[in-house]
Amino acid sequence: MSNREGAAFVPQIPYGTRDFLPREAWRKRKVENTLAATFANWGYEEVVTPTYEYLAVFGEGGLDAVDQVFKFFDRSNRTLVLRPDMTTPIARLSGTRFREETAPLKFFYLANVFRYEDAQAGRQCEFYQAGVELLGESSPVADAEVIALAVEALRAAGLQSFQISIGQADFLRSLIGEIGLDEQQAEELRHLLVSKDMVGLVNLLESALLSRDLKDRVKHVLLTNGKAELLKEAKALAGSEASRKAIENLETIYSLLKAHGVDEFVSFDLGLVRDFDYYTGMVFEGYTPGLGFPVCGGGRYDKLLEAFGRSQPATGFALGVDRLLMALEKQDKTLVKPPAPTIVAWEDGAQEKAIRLAASLRAAGKAVLVQTAPSAKPAAGMAEDGEYIFVEK
Amino acid sequence: MSNREGAAFVPQIPYGTRDFLPREAWRKRKVENTLAATFANWGYEEVVTPTYEYLAVFGEGGLDAVDQVFKFFDRSNRTLVLRPDMTTPIARLSGTRFREETAPLKFFYLANVFRYEDAQAGRQCEFYQAGVELLGESSPVADAEVIALAVEALRAAGLQSFQISIGQADFLRSLIGEIGLDEQQAEELRHLLVSKDMVGLVNLLESALLSRDLKDRVKHVLLTNGKAELLKEAKALAGSEASRKAIENLETIYSLLKAHGVDEFVSFDLGLVRDFDYYTGMVFEGYTPGLGFPVCGGGRYDKLLEAFGRSQPATGFALGVDRLLMALEKQDKTLVKPPAPTIVAWEDGAQEKAIRLAASLRAAGKAVLVQTAPSAKPAAGMAEDGEYIFVEK
Repeated sequence: MSNREGAAFVPQIPYGTRDFLPREAWRKRKVENTLAATFANWGYEEVVTPTYEYLAVFGEGGLDAVDQVFKFFDRSNRTLVLRPDMTTPIARLSGTRFREETAPLKFFYLANVFRYEDAQAGRQCEFYQAGVELLGESSPVADAEVIALAVEALRAAGLQSFQISIGQADFLRSLIGEIGLDEQQAEELRHLLVSKDMVGLVNLLESALLSRDLKDRVKHVLLTNGKAELLKEAKALAGSEASRKAIENLETIYSLLKAHGVDEFVSFDLGLVRDFDYYTGMVFEGYTPGLGFPVCGGGRYDKLLEAFGRSQPATGFALGVDRLLMALEKQDKTLVKPPAPTIVAWEDGAQEKAIRLAASLRAAGKAVLVQTAPSAKPAAGMAEDGEYIFVEK
Repeated sequence: MSNREGAAFVPQIPYGTRDFLPREAWRKRKVENTLAATFANWGYEEVVTPTYEYLAVFGEGGLDAVDQVFKFFDRSNRTLVLRPDMTTPIARLSGTRFREETAPLKFFYLANVFRYEDAQAGRQCEFYQAGVELLGESSPVADAEVIALAVEALRAAGLQSFQISIGQADFLRSLIGEIGLDEQQAEELRHLLVSKDMVGLVNLLESALLSRDLKDRVKHVLLTNGKAELLKEAKALAGSEASRKAIENLETIYSLLKAHGVDEFVSFDLGLVRDFDYYTGMVFEGYTPGLGFPVCGGGRYDKLLEAFGRSQPATGFALGVDRLLMALEKQDKTLVKPPAPTIVAWEDGAQEKAIRLAASLRAAGKAVLVQTAPSAKPAAGMAEDGEYIFVEK
């Protein structure tokens, strides 16, 4: 099964994937372990699920973009899917292995996920996520905790400049109903918000049959980033119990975020729409300068677990590990790299002596690389940035 | 795309895959980090490659069992394969990103790999490997290093009882030629060795046209585990330069393993055959009591890199993380589990106070789980195995 034609076989890697070379892999492991330790420090427990699931699992999970998943078949011709997210597999897990558990579950994961995308820096077909899911609790205490934990995780990883925008899926849904947009306009509004097309959005609202005053207030509430004052204006605009409650939910979350000491990192963006359909309440995204994509995002999804036989509210977030690494690299121009081991070189015949020396140095806590071939005795100053030891016979 | 029929959707996980629940995931992360630290301590650097590769890559790698790989297609209809091992992707990496590098490369990885198998405990379709590859060095110093590192990795992970068997692919190939088996008998011998069918092997040798004395010596050399004495007997049996050199190679490796201080963990098994075709010299496997499969295995593969434009010798090994976890579990009957966090519970109205307390405890280095719903004030002695703090208004 060789496909070589002549001697010119140059192996490629698949579209939208990447290799992590040593320095990159070292940074990845370091950041992932920091994130894992942070999640564990908040009482979250790690779970690991298979890389692929039966397609039906994601059918239940309400994945819209079926053509965005990698599909293949098992030997019984059942369709398998490389997981496009971890929220759905964890919902599946909670509905099977934790079906009888009544207490809230706090899980975290570090996992690769897969989506057909037009690949670019920060958007790959295989990418790495770190995230948490808090299952079985509907209170704003849970929502505030996952937002605060996202802030804490980004800080622990060393990210210096970032901002979390918080929206409310219920509020937006209600508001769209209340301001009398027809179905087509409502759908268009949602699209414009997803693509953050502010000009299109203003044009749409201008063309809607709303009073001047209402137009201005809706525009302001959907297009402005703000804190307590914005929530107050949104509540004044709310025309139903549902939309008012949605804003009160954010007010409670905001006061809890103050208790968490992270309110300086958050603001509200009531036009925020997430790319998965399953969100039902608070939603949020994190941004950092110079990165064209959110570095993290999440929200409340109270309907997803129902499909897996465990009808419970849930909230959580995922953080893009590749994106976080990119942002950290941009932030810190100095070349961060792993500590260099002590190099043990040896002249021919001294290999066993060198090996014994290395073993004793390692036993004393040093990282030691033994050269695998003999060297000529060096002139002084061979070591680049680690220690260099030459072993003679 | 819902496949629910009635309300009876019970989600399953794909054949041959598994979920790691919190305690299992914690043990996995712990062991994997120990292995990563051990490899780094020997001067090996981590690399991460995509979960899937183009089929052509494994074609070059000489994968025999094409029907054992999971295949699917990208949008340009090129065939993709979930990686069945990590040795081939690292060979691919070394032939592309490290083509110009002249010094030996020392890489390690922790990765999941995928093979269609008849699943059973210790043999899954998705499983986890930790391993090293030492590229660009043909000397026994390199072979001894990877064997010693395998021993060190198993010890660092906490495995108390294990044994490494070392064979030699060159010796076996030469011996089969020398003792005058016909092609069919040679193929059968190889099969019997792979399946460790000792009875079949004895029968085959009995039926071969060999002298009584030669039969006995071949049987003894192929079926006995031994140390220096066995190598001496094998050398006496060697009928060619190639088979004699192959044994001398093992003798050198053995004296280097003594320098590494790991000779008590190794013995020689000259009938050892590994399941990948690409091995060309020393091969080895590690066994631990109560596990029906090797816990690690590897060897020298001097031809594989040639296909990727970097014609260099190489040696390495892979360790089965799932198998290692099974062996550790059998060895240590006590239920090893992660440290329990301090639980912070609170009465209604005290949530912000509880959150602030948790933040200050975490700042002081404690792991803290804040309950997400209010509790009634407890009677004494609520905590199971961690600290329990109840916050009043």
